[in-house]
Order: sequence, then C-alpha cells, then structure tokens
Amino acid sequence: MGKEITPRLQDYSQWYLDIVKKADMAENSDVRGCMVIKPYGYSIWEKMQAGLDKMFKDTGHTNAYFPVFVPKSMFEAEEKNAEGFAKECAIVTHYRLKNDPQNKGKLMVDPDAKLEEELVVRPTSEAIIWNTYKKWIQSYRDLPILINQWANVVRWEMRTRLFLRTAEFLWQEGHTAHATAKEAEEETVRMLNVYADFAENFMALPVIRGRKSEGERFPGAIETYCIEALMQDGKALQAGTSHFLGQNFAKAFDVQFSGKDGKLDHVWGTSWGVSTRLIGGLIMAHSDDDGLILPPRLAPIHVVIVPIFKTEAELASIAAVAEKIAGDLRKLGYAVKFDNRDNQKPGYKFAEYELKGVPVRIAIGPRDLENGTVELARRDTKEKSVKQVSEVAALIPSLLEEIQQNIYQRALNFRNSMTTHVDTYEDFKKVLDEKGGFVLAHWDGSKESEAAIKEETKATIRCIPLDAASESGKCIYSGKPSVQRVVFARAY
Amino acid sequence: MGKEITPRLQDYSQWYLDIVKKADMAENSDVRGCMVIKPYGYSIWEKMQAGLDKMFKDTGHTNAYFPVFVPKSMFEAEEKNAEGFAKECAIVTHYRLKNDPQNKGKLMVDPDAKLEEELVVRPTSEAIIWNTYKKWIQSYRDLPILINQWANVVRWEMRTRLFLRTAEFLWQEGHTAHATAKEAEEETVRMLNVYADFAENFMALPVIRGRKSEGERFPGAIETYCIEALMQDGKALQAGTSHFLGQNFAKAFDVQFSGKDGKLDHVWGTSWGVSTRLIGGLIMAHSDDDGLILPPRLAPIHVVIVPIFKTEAELASIAAVAEKIAGDLRKLGYAVKFDNRDNQKPGYKFAEYELKGVPVRIAIGPRDLENGTVELARRDTKEKSVKQVSEVAALIPSLLEEIQQNIYQRALNFRNSMTTHVDTYEDFKKVLDEKGGFVLAHWDGSKESEAAIKEETKATIRCIPLDAASESGKCIYSGKPSVQRVVFARAY
Repeated sequence: MGKEITPRLQDYSQWYLDIVKKADMAENSDVRGCMVIKPYGYSIWEKMQAGLDKMFKDTGHTNAYFPVFVPKSMFEAEEKNAEGFAKECAIVTHYRLKNDPQNKGKLMVDPDAKLEEELVVRPTSEAIIWNTYKKWIQSYRDLPILINQWANVVRWEMRTRLFLRTAEFLWQEGHTAHATAKEAEEETVRMLNVYADFAENFMALPVIRGRKSEGERFPGAIETYCIEALMQDGKALQAGTSHFLGQNFAKAFDVQFSGKDGKLDHVWGTSWGVSTRLIGGLIMAHSDDDGLILPPRLAPIHVVIVPIFKTEAELASIAAVAEKIAGDLRKLGYAVKFDNRDNQKPGYKFAEYELKGVPVRIAIGPRDLENGTVELARRDTKEKSVKQVSEVAALIPSLLEEIQQNIYQRALNFRNSMTTHVDTYEDFKKVLDEKGGFVLAHWDGSKESEAAIKEETKATIRCIPLDAASESGKCIYSGKPSVQRVVFARAY
Repeated sequence: MGKEITPRLQDYSQWYLDIVKKADMAENSDVRGCMVIKPYGYSIWEKMQAGLDKMFKDTGHTNAYFPVFVPKSMFEAEEKNAEGFAKECAIVTHYRLKNDPQNKGKLMVDPDAKLEEELVVRPTSEAIIWNTYKKWIQSYRDLPILINQWANVVRWEMRTRLFLRTAEFLWQEGHTAHATAKEAEEETVRMLNVYADFAENFMALPVIRGRKSEGERFPGAIETYCIEALMQDGKALQAGTSHFLGQNFAKAFDVQFSGKDGKLDHVWGTSWGVSTRLIGGLIMAHSDDDGLILPPRLAPIHVVIVPIFKTEAELASIAAVAEKIAGDLRKLGYAVKFDNRDNQKPGYKFAEYELKGVPVRIAIGPRDLENGTVELARRDTKEKSVKQVSEVAALIPSLLEEIQQNIYQRALNFRNSMTTHVDTYEDFKKVLDEKGGFVLAHWDGSKESEAAIKEETKATIRCIPLDAASESGKCIYSGKPSVQRVVFARAY
C-alpha cells in the first residue's frame, strides 16, 4: 500500500515521523515550525479534549478565553517569566499591509501602521490573565477563581518535530487564584493528579508524578509538578505540568484581596497545562512497526468492519450482517466504520487500519456467512479469533476494555524493565548509554551537580518523585549526602 | 443588586453593553480591541460550538487545524482576498525579545531577530489552507475535501464592540474542495441552510437567507450567501456567511486534479463561517430591560432552584425537595442549579438569574413545603404558577420547549412587524428613519444605485433573498427595471 514504515530498531526517530505522516495525523506546513493537524490527528485531540474538559469541570473549573496578544509592558511585568520566554516570542509590530509601489500585485508592511507598543503572541497566558484577574478580585468572596482556557500558543522553537515541539501548538492552560497558599498548593497537586489520571486511564500511559528541580521549573513558579512518561526508545517525555505560582504573578500585577479580617494580601496562584504534545507521547509509547496502536478510549474509530467479497451479491449479504453488528455497537456508543469500498483489496484495508491503530477489526467473508461467524482481530496483540455473528457485538465492550488494560500493562511492564537503580556515576553513565530509560539515583540537590551531570551525559532530572521512599544515600556526582532518589533520563 | 441595566428605549447601545458586562459575559481587555470572554459568555459559546459541530459532522465534515500565521507571499497570492484584508492585518516581524540595555528589567524587540518574510496573523484561512490542499489533491479520488476549523482570527478593527466586532474573535471556518462547480455550489447552499437551521432552532432567531450583492461579497468569492437577522432596535445583523469561491483560490495556489477522464482541471472551493458575533446577536434579539433571555437550547443553566428560608432547618427541608427535583431533571439531561447561598436574599437571586437569562426558576418556601408545591417562573414571559412538587420535574421538558418556541415566535412576529415593502425612495427613507427594520424594495442591480443609497441613507443591501417571488418593478433609486425585491436595512 506504499505506506511502509521504517522499523523502530532501524531508526526510531524516522519511525515516529513515518507514523505521523502515513497515518495522516499531521504534517509540516510551509510556515516555519508550524504544523497542520490533519483530520485523523485532530480527531484524537478532540477525544483528549473531551476527556480532559470533563475532568476539569468535574473539579469545579470553567472555561473562558483571553486575548492571543500580550502587550510588551504586560509581558515583562513578571520578570522571571518574561526572561524565560523572551527568546522565543513572535512579535507583532504593525497592523496593516499596503500595496508595494515597487512590486505591482504585491503587498508590504505599511510603515505608517507601526504599533506604539509591540504585542507578543502569547507563549503562555499568565501575564494577560493576571492582568485581568486584578479587575475581578477585590475580596476573599471573589476567590477562588478556577478557570481553564483552550487555545493556541506560539513559542519560536528552532528545532521542531511534529506534535512534540512546534512553534505553534494547541493546549489548555488552567489559571487559578486562591486566598491561601495551602489552597493553591492543593489545587496544584489536584490538577497534577487529574493529568496522571488522564494519562493512565485514557492514554494507557503510566506516569511518574513528581516535582521539578529548581533548574527545570516554569519561569515564575515557586514549584513545578510534572508527570513523566517513558517512550519506547528509553527517552522520557514530560507529559504535563502543574505550577504553584505562589504570589509571584499577584505581586507583579498587584492583585490583592481583602480577607475576612479586612486585611489586604496578595492572591496565590496556580497554572497547569497539557498540549498536543500528548499525541506525540501517545504514538511513541504504544505503537509498533505496523503503525499506530491507540487505546480504545482515545480511538476515533473503535471497530472497523471489512467485507471480503468478489461479487456485488456477496457484498450485499455481508453488508446486511455488518450493518446489524455496527448498529448494535453504535447503540452502545462505539464508533464503527464499515469499509465497503470496492476499489481496495481486504489486505490493503487491513494494513490501513493497522496503520491507523483501530483497536478491533471484524472481517466477514462468504465462508463466514455460511457459518454464521466473523473473524475478530485485535490491533494490540494481533490475535485473531472466530466468533459467532450473534455474539460478537456483545463481546466488544469487554474486549475494548481488555485492550485498554493490556496496552497500559504493556507500557507499565516496559517502564518497569527500563527503570534502573544505580549508585555510582560510572553505572549511571553505563545504564544511560547501554540501556536508557529512567535511572533512579541519589542527587545532592545542588544546581551544580545537576548541571554537570546534564553537561556530561545529556541526562536531566525528570522529577523528584512524589511517592518515593526516603532513603539516605550519596549523590552519584558529588558524593554528598542525599535523602531520596530522583529520576534521571535523557528526554524529549 | 447594583446591576441596573439602561432601558432599551433610553439607549439601546448602552443597554447591550450593560447586559454583556453585568451578566458577566465578556469585557474589554487591556489589549486594544481584544475581548476577554468570561466563563458565562464562554459557556454559551460552548453550547453553540457543540450544536454546530454536530451539524457539521452530520453533513460529512471533519475538523482539522492550520497555522495561525500566513507568510506574506502566501497571503497575497489571491489578490482580491489579500486586498480585502490587507488594511486590517496584525503583522509579525520579529521572533525574539532581548533585554533593553537602556532600561533595566525591560525588554525590547531584538533587531537581530527580524524575520526574512513577515507573517500575517490569519484574518481568515483560505490562503494557508489552499496552499496545503495543493499537496493533498492530485486526483478526483482525493475530492471532496470537507474540513472545518475552530480557531481564533484577528482583524484590526478600529471601532470595536464586545462580541459584535473585535480585533480578535473566535469562529469556525469551513473550507471545502470539490471536483465540480455544481458540487461546490451545492455545498455552499447546504452550509447556508445549516446556519439557518442553527439560528432558527438553537438561537430561536428567524433569519432571511440570501445572496450578497457584488459590493458586499467576501473578497475572493464568486458568490456570497448569508443569513440576516433583525435586532430589536430595527438594525440588521449578518449572522453567518457561506461563500462559493469558484476556482479562484485553486488558481491562485495552482491546485489542480486529474479527472476520471485524465484531464487536469482546477479545483472548486467553498468557505463558510460563523463567529462569537452570534452571541451578540443572541443578546440583541431576545433580551429585555431585566437582562438576558436565552433560548433553552443554548442556556448554560436550564433551571435554577431558589430556596426561601429563614432558618437552617427550613433550608435543610427545602434542600431535600430541591435536590430531588434537581436529580430528576439532571437525569433527563438538564443543567440545574440549586442556589443555597445564605448571604444573598431571594429577591437578589431572582434578579441575578433574570439578568443571566436562566429560562426557568423554581422557588420553594416554607409555605410550599406545607402544601407540597413550588412556584414556577419562566424568564421569557415572567409568568408564575404554582405546581405540585410531584409533577414539576415532569413539566419542565415541555415547558422548556414551549419557551424555545415562544422566543422564536416573538422574534418572528417582531421581524414581520418590522418588515416593510416600499416602492418609492421617499417612503424608503421615511421607513428607515421612522421605523427601521427590513425594507423590501426594488433595486436595479447596479453598483452605482447601491452605493448612492448607502451614501445617502446608511442602509445597505443585506441580501437578495433566496425565497422571494420574482416580481417586476422599478428601482427605488434609479427607476430602472428590476425583477425582484431585495432586503435593505441599516446594519451592525
């Protein structure tokens, strides 16, 4: 079918790009660093949005929308945040084009339409949102504010990669405001747990929840929490972050509230986000050399039915059975496709739906019609079995659940096999080079050791895990004392 | 409650802004011309999105996402389109900020990070999308392409007004590609009808479907269809447009396909869109001096239950009844709020939910508890009635449907009463000045008459209606012959 995918072992990076392109998920646009998300890729994003949006609303959040532009003076108000994003900002300087007198039919930027103040295309929205919250918050009665935004953001990345790192990407960003540090800290962890729940239960992606080291923190945050996942090449992917902002943005934008006691205090904040990057993680965690493997909860099509026929009459008989099964499944809420195209052979179709990661395939041929059977194939294990027509629809719900669990378990087993405890720097480097994966090692907590390890090995501290046992040891780099292991890995 | 709204008759324009602000729907941001859509306003947009998205999918469309930036050379490829939007484009010229050596703690645009080619922030996406379609289309087998995008767009408007006209707004834009003119024309009308269906059945807003005159056409289109609605001040609002693009964009971007006969031809296109402007239309069409009136199908809250109590014990007894009613209604899919706040009086709450347009209010007091009754009030007519607790939940579905129909019928009656046939220019001007509304008059089809009428009366041709009878007459301006009446109005 002309859809050959480079095998993972040959070139993991090319394998990834082959899947993205050949499964019609996304492509590079002619706009530097920006991608086009094609319908199949976007339909997975819609599934992710629906799952996350419900979880956000169930935890008390509402959606709103804030401007895409941030005036420079507003952008620079929180200095660390501004410094962190200044080098990768798209800047609007003019508001009009005019005919180019030198080039008939061409346009040029109108020099008379220069903005008095430049506008930054949002790389993240803390600045514009806290500038707005200032107007909304006077008293403790106005708190908490629990808002999420679905939006596009722009970060001028020099080296881009479809879904994983693009100049423009889609995301959601939650921005909350609270009366106390405790409430804000609880919110930060609550949303981290929402992300972990989504990753594990929708994406079938086991994640480690943890705190970032100071060097990896979001610019402007007091504490950054994250979920970290492991890809099949042994590299880590940061899949979501939740930031405790302390009073940093409230101070930068002078957002104060009067408490029950009448005293004025600055508001406490959080922000948290996940992006279309999750689609990249989903692909890299589960898929194989035949294409995508999608967890059923995020699959745009749950079941595809492929007829095997030579004549129109055979197709008609098969269609009657197929439509009955499809109808039963749709009533249960599943997305079913009956692919009755007559210009492609069944083998081509089988390969196509494997490439696209459809969890379950049902094939029906003339022999099946005689026997009252169908062939059922699952994408994750490639197992096939013959089932009675009368029972097949009823089997699908538990089969899909089994596939969802199996994909998760496989990823978890892989991660466990790729998680190594090391106690010496020599072993650390050896594991990174020969095996990869998560390396749990002691670290003295200093920026210097972290930077030196990164410089020498390209491994970073992915997180200081939340659920790790305290354990005294010695930093693999400095030999200084440490109280718990942290998670190192090379990362995307 | 400090939420007084300027009466419509006193100042319609201020009445509108008062509702937008006091019902917490949106506000101006500190970014010139850009609005913040607040949670309540955004929740109405979410309802609109859900309704439209389902209609788009039911008519075979899928969603995708294209870059927010359009390189200048791509933007100018379709000359008429470029010319139409050039004067209102935000232009990105640089991709980095740096520390300002003259101002410690401040940033400046880094002159070394000037883009080789400027990027236009999309005012509409035909250019970037047709540039992409070029890669997707080789043969008739690749057609049709039926894609929609939900996105933000930027048009640098000098005079803005919340929801109705803002520099940045949210919208959906459909972009389809077809093998024949006929198919593309059918698609254009199909989507016009989807919009009319949505306006009438979700927004309860009667609309006239028609074609635009040449002067009002979308730049780059062969034909623009629109739906036009009438606001309570007698001005028209264009609520949605659907464009037949002919081969204009295919030619500008050289998008050709080989037909079944092997011959190459340019692809035929359509585009169509509605935006957050619809929220403005929704407000202006139905609301009254007490606030919003929302059609139930777009109401974020269908039913609010307000307890009337003095003691904690009374509240507890009322809550038991309220939760039972709320539970029954939620099972039926309705959004119900039980407002048990103890720091606001019932009268304050009544006014607040009237302001927010909640279609049905249920009030329960101690006397009701004794009698097994509740007080039911509808927002549209302000009618109140006493109902048995046991029957109230079952009454709600048909009541909401009745409210939906009533709001539509009221708007339709108003429009009918405000639609006037005139045959002389004198009457035309008189009706515009003294009554307003839609004026049906003969027009000779010339740009000159259209422009003169606009110049002299500020009325524009809203559309050449699709369902009008052909009727010979004389142009009110030039006296030249005409074959059908067109719809004139002053408009937003």
